[in-house]
Amino acid sequence: MNHMSGAVAQVNVAEVARRARAASRLLAIVPSERRDAALEAAADAIAARKTEILDANQRDCEQALRALAAGQMKPALFERLRITEQSIKQMTAGVREVAALPDPLGRSLAVTELDEGLMLYKESCPIGVVGIIFEARPEIVPQIAALALKSGNSVILKGGTEAIQSNQVLFSIWKEALRQFPEIPLQVINLLYTRDDVSEMLSLADDIDLIIPRGSREFVSYVAEHSRIPVLGHGEGLCHVYVDRAADLSKALSISFDSKVQYPAACNAMETLLVHEEIAARLLPDLITRYQEAAVEVRGCARTLELKGVQDVVAAREEDWATEYSDLIVSIRIVTGLNEAIAHIDQYGSGHTEAIVTEDQGTAAHFMERIDAAGVYLNASTRFADGFRYGFGAELGISTSKLHARGPVGLEGLTTYKYKLIGNGQTVASYVDGSRTFKHRSVG
Amino acid sequence: MNHMSGAVAQVNVAEVARRARAASRLLAIVPSERRDAALEAAADAIAARKTEILDANQRDCEQALRALAAGQMKPALFERLRITEQSIKQMTAGVREVAALPDPLGRSLAVTELDEGLMLYKESCPIGVVGIIFEARPEIVPQIAALALKSGNSVILKGGTEAIQSNQVLFSIWKEALRQFPEIPLQVINLLYTRDDVSEMLSLADDIDLIIPRGSREFVSYVAEHSRIPVLGHGEGLCHVYVDRAADLSKALSISFDSKVQYPAACNAMETLLVHEEIAARLLPDLITRYQEAAVEVRGCARTLELKGVQDVVAAREEDWATEYSDLIVSIRIVTGLNEAIAHIDQYGSGHTEAIVTEDQGTAAHFMERIDAAGVYLNASTRFADGFRYGFGAELGISTSKLHARGPVGLEGLTTYKYKLIGNGQTVASYVDGSRTFKHRSVG
Repeated sequence: MNHMSGAVAQVNVAEVARRARAASRLLAIVPSERRDAALEAAADAIAARKTEILDANQRDCEQALRALAAGQMKPALFERLRITEQSIKQMTAGVREVAALPDPLGRSLAVTELDEGLMLYKESCPIGVVGIIFEARPEIVPQIAALALKSGNSVILKGGTEAIQSNQVLFSIWKEALRQFPEIPLQVINLLYTRDDVSEMLSLADDIDLIIPRGSREFVSYVAEHSRIPVLGHGEGLCHVYVDRAADLSKALSISFDSKVQYPAACNAMETLLVHEEIAARLLPDLITRYQEAAVEVRGCARTLELKGVQDVVAAREEDWATEYSDLIVSIRIVTGLNEAIAHIDQYGSGHTEAIVTEDQGTAAHFMERIDAAGVYLNASTRFADGFRYGFGAELGISTSKLHARGPVGLEGLTTYKYKLIGNGQTVASYVDGSRTFKHRSVG
Repeated sequence: MNHMSGAVAQVNVAEVARRARAASRLLAIVPSERRDAALEAAADAIAARKTEILDANQRDCEQALRALAAGQMKPALFERLRITEQSIKQMTAGVREVAALPDPLGRSLAVTELDEGLMLYKESCPIGVVGIIFEARPEIVPQIAALALKSGNSVILKGGTEAIQSNQVLFSIWKEALRQFPEIPLQVINLLYTRDDVSEMLSLADDIDLIIPRGSREFVSYVAEHSRIPVLGHGEGLCHVYVDRAADLSKALSISFDSKVQYPAACNAMETLLVHEEIAARLLPDLITRYQEAAVEVRGCARTLELKGVQDVVAAREEDWATEYSDLIVSIRIVTGLNEAIAHIDQYGSGHTEAIVTEDQGTAAHFMERIDAAGVYLNASTRFADGFRYGFGAELGISTSKLHARGPVGLEGLTTYKYKLIGNGQTVASYVDGSRTFKHRSVG
């Protein structure tokens, strides 16, 4: 039975992707005002049909409660499943915020006059078809559907089975709202259900242009290992703060605290604090006390353990430097200076976000040029690494890949570009035989 | 023996890549003027040591001649192997041209004031480590080494065994020239030799950021299938010209001719000509005669075969529409209009370059928005799709991928970006508790 349903799903997914590709080609030419109107219509429909959504979510939650009671579901997953009246308001507000953003399509990225009457335009356009794989959190359906519609992309959503009723009703409401816009094909949004569908999705490199896995590090790695399709996501967020000898003590204290404690489960939270040996005795006793008052478990290097005024610090082991705790645990290492801090970050950092606290401009500049990470920060908390805080208006995720999109990714991450060349009959032969020569004048 | 050398090479490649990674971190902070000076020094060294290069190439060519005689090498490969005094001049000129290009690093891509005293800078920076796999053509060594050095990247070159002596001497000369620049680690340039090295390279996703395969379509696909590392290249160049009913006949004639004949082996050459039924009888007899005078084999759809004044046209088969001839062969299909032309391109196009010939602005605009390809052209030959013709000054290749780089790729394709955030002690907690709010003012 399982085998059969898998086989059936496999046939469908390729077909779903082919239709999504065809739909994306039509969506790409829908004008901005119509895409925005469709987003407003979808937000209206979600608000109008909130009872249906709450009912469906109630059924998912009851099912999940049984799984929870049977120990087949983690409490954290259950937490992320529940939809409230409040979260429906957030969903609709989120969709309307995306509608209000500037159109990411048709932006002029460069204009070059190749020759008289031969103009080259580089313009942003949609990527095409985007696959998203996520767990629980049914509010991802309208969030991602909104980003995709705004950016002219078809989307294939694969949610977790635990949220199947909630996802299904949100998907139907969205699709229903699109019916008022005959120029937008309904196949721009698609919902898949099974684990087999995921394997099938990963193999459809011809019809899916980008996969965004939202889930654990292991899951993101699994996807990257098993697909030729480019993946937008972050495998790991192992961020550091380095407190230099020339640091302002009060900034060092608040940044080191905020980077760890403000939301430790986030990928941009600090895991390891590196402290210059000349400032360690002044900074660490106070900081460690503050950490411990906030229930942070502190693991320190041998020199940290020897500091006066420091208590209840566990000895850090080698593996601590390589661990993303995502929890109220911090490892602290005293270093002899900037070079040792940089070497530590080179070795253990994940290229996500790395901060230095210093008042020395030369040291700061060297750190920021030298460190290879999506974000390099001076005197600011690593927790700022986020699309909303960066002002993108919407966040698709954070990328630790260096290609296409790096760091927090907004709508721009769902666009690519095309070159439009407009001539009046030009041939390459006339440039090769020397009867014409290129001007290559940049005009925008 | 073969097995042993393979095993030895495998150990080395991972080590080579690790050192290349470390070297790239130091190269990233070498100022532009020093990178340019190193390029000039390398060009000088190549010019000064041309006899060594010619001698080494002579040895490769003698070896290749024996392989050629034994039928173990293709004549085309042999052609690309030979270095002349002229090609040495071109090598040094090419390196100096790269030196003269604007610095691709440290470009400001966006500046946002997140809040008073909290500034976010998005700046271009090197990708890190780039692997290039190529056949014959030893001039690729200085060409790619120059692009990599200019853009602050380490490079791992894997050339063909047929050019081993030539590649080795060019590599030594380059490395020797770098010795005058103690701030540039010698491990920024690396040369590998064996086929086993390639498989090993493809597995080193932690230390190689981008692979550029230069070779056949099959080879590019092989690389993409066998590596998690992003690949820059083009699988296929199946380009079309669509001659609309509102086309200017003389433009249609010269563009259709140039796109096919000017250099048929190029990936941007046209393979299939689509012609509106209302203009076919006026255009095709003349055009087909011109093609045939230029030794082009013409394969036509049933309607083309029936045209008056058309001779010696072979009946095109279904597989013709899907074939990149890369040769003096063209397939011609008469269509009922724009929609059929677009549907044909959707089905058979490779997303490389697609052209329309028309004087109707509405038809042109629809074609250019609707067609999903790296280049969409109005009244210009597909052969313009090239980094030099686009004015990039240097070309790394042409990408039919939609992510990172699309179409002709210049130095920019070897860069990524990082976000620099400069604050004075800001924490996220103060924005969450409402004591501060973001401004998000774009200032550049």
